Amino acid sequence: MKSLTEYLTFNTKSRRDYINITQTIEDIVTKSGIQEGICLVNAMHITASVFINDNERGLLNDFDDFLEKLAPYEPVSHYRHNRTGEDNGDAHLKRTIMGREVVVAITKGRLDFGPWEQIFYGEFDGRRSKRVLVKVIGE
Amino acid sequence: MKSLTEYLTFNTKSRRDYINITQTIEDIVTKSGIQEGICLVNAMHITASVFINDNERGLLNDFDDFLEKLAPYEPVSHYRHNRTGEDNGDAHLKRTIMGREVVVAITKGRLDFGPWEQIFYGEFDGRRSKRVLVKVIGE
Amino acid sequence: MKSLTEYLTFNTKSRRDYINITQTIEDIVTKSGIQEGICLVNAMHITASVFINDNERGLLNDFDDFLEKLAPYEPVSHYRHNRTGEDNGDAHLKRTIMGREVVVAITKGRLDFGPWEQIFYGEFDGRRSKRVLVKVIGE
Repeated sequence: MKSLTEYLTFNTKSRRDYINITQTIEDIVTKSGIQEGICLVNAMHITASVFINDNERGLLNDFDDFLEKLAPYEPVSHYRHNRTGEDNGDAHLKRTIMGREVVVAITKGRLDFGPWEQIFYGEFDGRRSKRVLVKVIGE
Repeated sequence: MKSLTEYLTFNTKSRRDYINITQTIEDIVTKSGIQEGICLVNAMHITASVFINDNERGLLNDFDDFLEKLAPYEPVSHYRHNRTGEDNGDAHLKRTIMGREVVVAITKGRLDFGPWEQIFYGEFDGRRSKRVLVKVIGE
Repeated sequence: MKSLTEYLTFNTKSRRDYINITQTIEDIVTKSGIQEGICLVNAMHITASVFINDNERGLLNDFDDFLEKLAPYEPVSHYRHNRTGEDNGDAHLKRTIMGREVVVAITKGRLDFGPWEQIFYGEFDGRRSKRVLVKVIGE
């Protein structure tokens, strides 16, 4: 069994952001030399997400509206977590809806994707350095 | 390390549907000959889901009600994604709630399941051909 | 490829509970002797969850409030699933929001975690014996 581990770093300009990282992950899979296996991609921070969906700007706005409706940023005092001095209680909930990680099949040396699948980094408490882990295992 | 990759195709009669695919996945695991490992099952389309829950019709109806309340199909104009000419903005959100994929342990050649665990394909924008990927890795 | 499979059992005193199981999982990874690979941790019951977030009591309360708002326990008659004689329709939905499983990278023999990542068992229909599966694969 072979494996490769890489770490990506993001520092978004806005509090919330959605970044397409598909090509970066594809390049790591190629670098690994693994032909058959799986690729795990996960946020290493608990206020961010890695998820798979369509690369369409209107849809990403819909996700953002949906999350803000379910777990609004304000009032900050609504979240008990924020009594610790944080203001990111909403971000923990938003990331939970979107998911921490994806596991993607690797077939014949490539991400085995349907026609519209793209991998996104979802940031819900940005403007600081945060990491994503990529682990490829297989043969 | 051994691996097996299979693709399932679904074309549901209704827009939304929930199909128990447990036996199909179990058969693929048996076919793989893998005794210890994992099985990844994921929707290859971003308006469908693979999830694990109980095979009880009332519960599947509860899921459907829950999803329709959180992300209703109508008004179609509510979703910016639908300005592209689509009417499936809701389906992208519903699939996100239910999840894209499951990873299941294989122990002694079988899906290592609790008493009520069953694998479902959840369709949120059906009436056309869509695929599910099954990848088994292990030894 | 090496593998190790372990089962954890929980019997919570309250209907809903959130238990930090990080050290237990870390110990299983160490026991496996696996240096590079992945660790799957999943609830084996469909009214419980395994998820990763921050070990902060206020946040766990926020999760509980959030879930109870989205899928309230009462009125029990709201859920068609409960017509079977159960009263846990809400628990199936709550678990779906929080997720069934996590897949964690193992690097140099340890869970490859960000600074605040902790693994929790989330119980939504407790007061009885329920299991969690831990599967470690790699080399």
